[in-house]
Amino acid sequence: MKFVSLLALPLLALAPIQQAAAEQFTTEQLQHTAQIRQHAQNSELSWQLVESLTTEVGPRLPGTENDKKAVAWAKAQFERLGFDKVWLEKAHFPHWRRYHESGHILTPSKQPLHLTALGNSVSTAKDGLTAPIVLFETLAELQAAPAGSLAGKIAYVNYRMNRDIDGNGYGPAVKARSSGAVVAAQKGAIGYMMRSVSTSHHRFAHTGGSHYKEGVSKIPNVAIANPDADQIARLIALGEQVTVHINIQTEDLGQGESYNVIGEITGHSKPDEYVLLASHLDSWDLGTGALDDGAGVAITMAAAKHVAAMKRPQRSIRVVLFAAEELGLWGAKDYVKAHSDELDHIVAAAESDFGADVVYAFESNVHAQSLPIVRAIAEQLKPLDVAYIGANSARGGPDLIPFERAQSSPIFALHQDGTDYFDYHHTADDTLDKIEPHKLKQNTAAYAVFAYMAADAKDKIQAK
Amino acid sequence: MKFVSLLALPLLALAPIQQAAAEQFTTEQLQHTAQIRQHAQNSELSWQLVESLTTEVGPRLPGTENDKKAVAWAKAQFERLGFDKVWLEKAHFPHWRRYHESGHILTPSKQPLHLTALGNSVSTAKDGLTAPIVLFETLAELQAAPAGSLAGKIAYVNYRMNRDIDGNGYGPAVKARSSGAVVAAQKGAIGYMMRSVSTSHHRFAHTGGSHYKEGVSKIPNVAIANPDADQIARLIALGEQVTVHINIQTEDLGQGESYNVIGEITGHSKPDEYVLLASHLDSWDLGTGALDDGAGVAITMAAAKHVAAMKRPQRSIRVVLFAAEELGLWGAKDYVKAHSDELDHIVAAAESDFGADVVYAFESNVHAQSLPIVRAIAEQLKPLDVAYIGANSARGGPDLIPFERAQSSPIFALHQDGTDYFDYHHTADDTLDKIEPHKLKQNTAAYAVFAYMAADAKDKIQAK
Repeated sequence: MKFVSLLALPLLALAPIQQAAAEQFTTEQLQHTAQIRQHAQNSELSWQLVESLTTEVGPRLPGTENDKKAVAWAKAQFERLGFDKVWLEKAHFPHWRRYHESGHILTPSKQPLHLTALGNSVSTAKDGLTAPIVLFETLAELQAAPAGSLAGKIAYVNYRMNRDIDGNGYGPAVKARSSGAVVAAQKGAIGYMMRSVSTSHHRFAHTGGSHYKEGVSKIPNVAIANPDADQIARLIALGEQVTVHINIQTEDLGQGESYNVIGEITGHSKPDEYVLLASHLDSWDLGTGALDDGAGVAITMAAAKHVAAMKRPQRSIRVVLFAAEELGLWGAKDYVKAHSDELDHIVAAAESDFGADVVYAFESNVHAQSLPIVRAIAEQLKPLDVAYIGANSARGGPDLIPFERAQSSPIFALHQDGTDYFDYHHTADDTLDKIEPHKLKQNTAAYAVFAYMAADAKDKIQAK
Repeated sequence: MKFVSLLALPLLALAPIQQAAAEQFTTEQLQHTAQIRQHAQNSELSWQLVESLTTEVGPRLPGTENDKKAVAWAKAQFERLGFDKVWLEKAHFPHWRRYHESGHILTPSKQPLHLTALGNSVSTAKDGLTAPIVLFETLAELQAAPAGSLAGKIAYVNYRMNRDIDGNGYGPAVKARSSGAVVAAQKGAIGYMMRSVSTSHHRFAHTGGSHYKEGVSKIPNVAIANPDADQIARLIALGEQVTVHINIQTEDLGQGESYNVIGEITGHSKPDEYVLLASHLDSWDLGTGALDDGAGVAITMAAAKHVAAMKRPQRSIRVVLFAAEELGLWGAKDYVKAHSDELDHIVAAAESDFGADVVYAFESNVHAQSLPIVRAIAEQLKPLDVAYIGANSARGGPDLIPFERAQSSPIFALHQDGTDYFDYHHTADDTLDKIEPHKLKQNTAAYAVFAYMAADAKDKIQAK
């Protein structure tokens, strides 16, 4: 274990930053960290939690009965695990539901089309929408189409997401999801269709948030699976005019209500300062939300529990399971509003919302004076094969975006290997069997080490 | 190339069987074989054929418009490729259609259930079937249930298929598909559900043929995807009573008509004797029938074409694309009936119907006196990394079963690696992207070598 050899060095031999790091934690605290890490790596708790949530509740779209069950489940779990404080905070969001979706390619030959409505999409007519499609390779190509040129047509963006360990392919691809329907409607299209924001070669369509714009006609808005997109690309390459039939039935139910569910391990000497461990409790309705974000729920709950099982740190650890992330970070936004006068109480915030593959690197976004604490934490993550990224410009997970905007909280990233994440993300195939238990344990151990050390460092970590 | 070194040996040094093999083919014929092999390995033809069939026609359930298109496609391709004779032969089958399928787990929590109707299944009521399920781990367990014990229930068989290079897991698993609904109904069940006969861990349900029995109530008959089956197993392990809702709408349309499509390369000296290269043109309706059996169609058509591109062999090569295999080998049965007095004209029969992974072994089922020809062919398959299995007890593909029963034809197996085949077989995920072009070429080359040599050997291969 690295810290033993570090401490064995005479202090004078340490570089200044190492010395400063060593001053933040006693030998006892570091031994303690090692125990927590070991304990978390051996514990089945995070697996049990994600198994229970995804099996007994399953999909949990905000506002549904299952969402209510998930809130009750989370509260009961926090209580069962002996968190010192457990409470709910209201969150509001636009309540949207999916009832039916189906589709076919009609010409040149009838074939099923594996599609899904994008979140927030309006319905087609009861008996569906039939129209020829016009293919654009990118959203920019669609944007360049002349006004009115798509009258009576379905605009189709064929952009293929790139696979990447950090999910860097997602951002460029997701623009076509967020705003494609608006651009298409502005050109006169009566429907919008896109290749799924997905790296999967299986026949699953990927859902996700999308938006309309005031004053622009709201048109049905779907994504198709990659093999179906390949099929359409081949047909068009053959010179065929492809006509499709789409039937999606959805409903806008106005404002919905749910809850951020919060469990706190209360610090023994500075209880008002806290480490924020974030994840989101809601999921899309297609899968069971195992990777997105049952894993994060399980990792953060279990990590805090593992710390508490040893001893209470100086500061608190607050696990917040945010509501309605998928529909637009609504729980996180409401949290930031409700806690706006105390966001500087957060000494470290990190979110687990990128599946369940291993954490491979650790990065901060903190005031330079707090870097010695960061280095000391990084040292304790090394036995978990977590590298240190010294750029100090970490972005948190999606629920931390409102916190980043408020610029009051030190942000941390425990970078997960996301190479395969977008094979499952937002599809029916996001189910428990896609999680490997040993990887989940590694994540839990990394979050436990991080949470304990950030909560028990001599000094409070400062925001930039 | 192996044959060169073989021929370079003094003839007296050859073992008797090698000598006998050498007598079946001239040096020129063996050079010819090498050219055909090389040509097939370099040709894109089989890829072009499977791409065209699965893209332009797509799924082709017997009796559908797409099935008619497939027949027209196949006839046109044979003609385009310059086959000497091209004709259709009528085939009849029970015409069954799938219109709708959906399902949910209702208790303890509402969750989508990925299911598919098994072929031949009756519909549920218009608004579906809701009932608690009773789990049996095997068909044998269900068979052991007391009569009447399943009244008002859905019987559910949770048997999991094993992965195996030769697909040996399929047989034991498929019994629950063929006859499960009959056994369930005999115990009073109002519906039958089973874990898919599939090795996939993705959320695809596997369809396939199933049967009812005269005098036993016909109950709706579905398979669920493996992740859904895992979910139900977990819920039941938790002590939950699982109730499901199933809605399948299907139709029995009586007797349907389609065609075996046949293309022949006519032999120059013994045209009535022929090598039968089999595959089936129909597919299930969920995927595009790429692995099952677009690949086989493409491999056999292209193989015969590659032989013909060099020269006509002594005997004919008849490529038969059978109709309605999926519904019960109907095209093959009709062929055997129509050709019952000339099945001994077949000098070698092999079917490609096991996906598009590489051929790894070659096996015969012929009269012992013909084994020298088999050995000579095996020698020419070695450069393709195809091993020889000397057991001489090959079974052909499914369409060859009626031929095997007739006991008139020498049967051959070009064993493919089927390790991953049941990840896709009979699911929506059986699409073109699952085929690797270089493996398709290897298959095509193996069939071309086999077809040419069996058609051009000095002696006619004899049946056992």
